Formats: sequence, structure tokens, C-alpha cells
Amino acid sequence: MARSGLLIVISGPSGAGKGTVCKALLEKKSDLLLSISKTTRKPRAGEKDGVNYFFVTDSEFMEAVREGDFLEYACVYGHKYGTPRSYVEEKLAEGYDVILEIDPQGALQVMKVYPNAVFIFLIPPSWAELCRRIEKRGTESKENMKKRLTAAVSELKQAHKYGYIVVNDSVEEASKRIISIIEAEKLRAFRNADFINAVIKEGG
Amino acid sequence: MARSGLLIVISGPSGAGKGTVCKALLEKKSDLLLSISKTTRKPRAGEKDGVNYFFVTDSEFMEAVREGDFLEYACVYGHKYGTPRSYVEEKLAEGYDVILEIDPQGALQVMKVYPNAVFIFLIPPSWAELCRRIEKRGTESKENMKKRLTAAVSELKQAHKYGYIVVNDSVEEASKRIISIIEAEKLRAFRNADFINAVIKEGG
Repeated sequence: MARSGLLIVISGPSGAGKGTVCKALLEKKSDLLLSISKTTRKPRAGEKDGVNYFFVTDSEFMEAVREGDFLEYACVYGHKYGTPRSYVEEKLAEGYDVILEIDPQGALQVMKVYPNAVFIFLIPPSWAELCRRIEKRGTESKENMKKRLTAAVSELKQAHKYGYIVVNDSVEEASKRIISIIEAEKLRAFRNADFINAVIKEGG
Repeated sequence: MARSGLLIVISGPSGAGKGTVCKALLEKKSDLLLSISKTTRKPRAGEKDGVNYFFVTDSEFMEAVREGDFLEYACVYGHKYGTPRSYVEEKLAEGYDVILEIDPQGALQVMKVYPNAVFIFLIPPSWAELCRRIEKRGTESKENMKKRLTAAVSELKQAHKYGYIVVNDSVEEASKRIISIIEAEKLRAFRNADFINAVIKEGG
């Protein structure tokens, strides 16, 4: 494939449902690739090494940082998360569309390196629903929950930096919306200059 | 409806198939409104007054110009075309999405007045196909055809000013692509600032 793939960044506050929506997205659109992050946090119930994340030790993570292996990395609620650079860049060059499911800290870093990526801010339909989803997860201490809610407010204040806002009222609808965004983004004029120039050359 | 509708401008060179694609689009998406232009040109086979265009005399057209009735107007191959302003602005304010099917001259005018409208440049899959479609139409003199092809080259050179490039290889596919664009555009972050601010207010 000559044409480079689309880098799609799906981010948003805790409780937005990033993981569930990305899973639905991959089931609906089999030509999408999900980049798997490395993390130092412990697996949650149902999470598998090499599927949801590569679960690594702190020293393994820091070695990857030193070697420049990460496209972005961040420390979030005491745990480190990073996106392996080589996998993403290879797949994009081969023409695949690659999804990064990352924290807002990481998304802001990617904006600087890949301004032409597609940045999607996923958000629950209301504040009350965001609180309910974080509580329901049941893995957080009271103190951590409070931290997540405070972080969510400042993350929401950065939402205007993203290309799109997708409300996750239902996983089905949210993933459909993201598919429309991916289809539309491929049609953006600035991504199709080569095609236009070829037609002009034929005609002129 | 509190939220203003989307203004969608579908333009492109002669032979791109703007009319056919817009017709398919309206059949697929019944909540879209098509703005009907006024023109001084004669109806082509099958075209109806008040459906495809309002067919008017030159002096009627010029009176509308004097009264500031047009959002954009242009003289294209010796005929005048204009978009009635009041209809479009009323419907947008009511929250309807309105389609303008207009010539590239008009589209460039609308870009100045409505930079946040959605600008779609429709294009045949190749130069050869563009020529074939204009010829097939059979309503043009040799000289007019030549004029249209020269114009098409300069119109293609302006295509980068549009938001999107849609190839009309099949009317079915082209209209589906435009529907994805409309759905994605409604999710653009800058169109959803009010929603984000409401969630922040709830949480903060």
C-alpha cells in the first residue's frame, strides 16, 4: 500500500468507556489495528497480557523509556503507560489504520508529534453517569476515585483540543459514530492531494 | 431546536454528478433539506420548476440581486445561478441541515460567509470519466464542452480549499460517503463546546 494509514487516538476521562468502545470498534471493523500499550499497573479482572496491555515491571518500563521506544508515555494515578513507537509507525507506513486507546496526558503528547492524527474525546452522556461508571468499576479506593473526578474536570477543559467529541451513551452508537469519523477523515481534502493532482495532470 | 443546523455545500466540476448524488442523498436521509437555486438557464430534460431550480428571467434574477436576496450567485457558461438567502438562514436557525448544490464559483463565495459550513468537492473517478459524462449529457455544443473542460482544470486546482474530496465512482457509494461526512461533522469538537461546558459545570 502506497498510502499511509490513519492514526486514530481515542481518549477521554476515566469512566468514559474507552476500552469497551475500542473492543466494539475492532469487532465491527476488522481492518483496524489496536496498538497495545505497556503498563506497570496490575491487570484488572478479565485483562490479559499481550491482549489488553503488555504488563511490565517498573524497571522494564524505564528501560524502554531510555531506549526511546515510546511514542508517548505518562504516569497516571501512580502507574506508567506507554505506546510502543516502532509497531505504530511500521503499521501506518504499511497503510493500516492504527488506534491508540490512551489517557488524555498521552493524547496531548501525540498531538504534538502527529497533528494530522484523528483525535477523539470519548465522554459519558453526563457527569452523573461518569461518576456512576467509575464507582461501578469497584477497583478504586475513595481517595483514588476523588482524584479521577478532579482529573476528569481538567481533562474536559482540554476537550476542545481534540478533533471530535463522541458521547458514549451506548457502546453500539459510540462505535458507529467513530466509524463515521474514520470514513470521513479518509476523505479530507488534505489527505487526497495526490489524487487531485493526478486528475489535474491527466486533464491539463 | 436550539442547535443550529449544518450547512453542507456540494460542489465540483461539470460532469461530477452533483445533481444525481444530491437526489440519492435526500432519498437516504429524509431530514436533509435541499436549497433550491434560482437560475436563468433553460430546464434540461426532466428538470422541473420549483423542484430542481426556480427558472426565472434575467430581469427577475437581477431584481433579486439588487434586493440582496442571494447568499451567493454566479454567472456560469452564460447563465446566472443564485442561492436564496432567507430560506437557507431560516432553516439553519430552526436546526435543519441544509444542502447547497452549487457551482465552484458559488462555493468559494460561501466559504467567505460561512467558513464553518461543510465543503464537499465531488469529482469523477478520472479525467477520462469526467469527459465522458459531459459528452454523454448531449446538451452542449463542442465549444461549450471545451469551456467546461478548461474550467474543470482550474476548479480542480481549488479543490484543496474544500474540507472533503468525494469521488463519485458510484452514486450509491458517493452518497454514503457524504452521509458519513455529515455524521462526523456533527461530532466536531468546535460544534460541541456547549455540551462540554455543561458537563464541566455539573462536575466542577
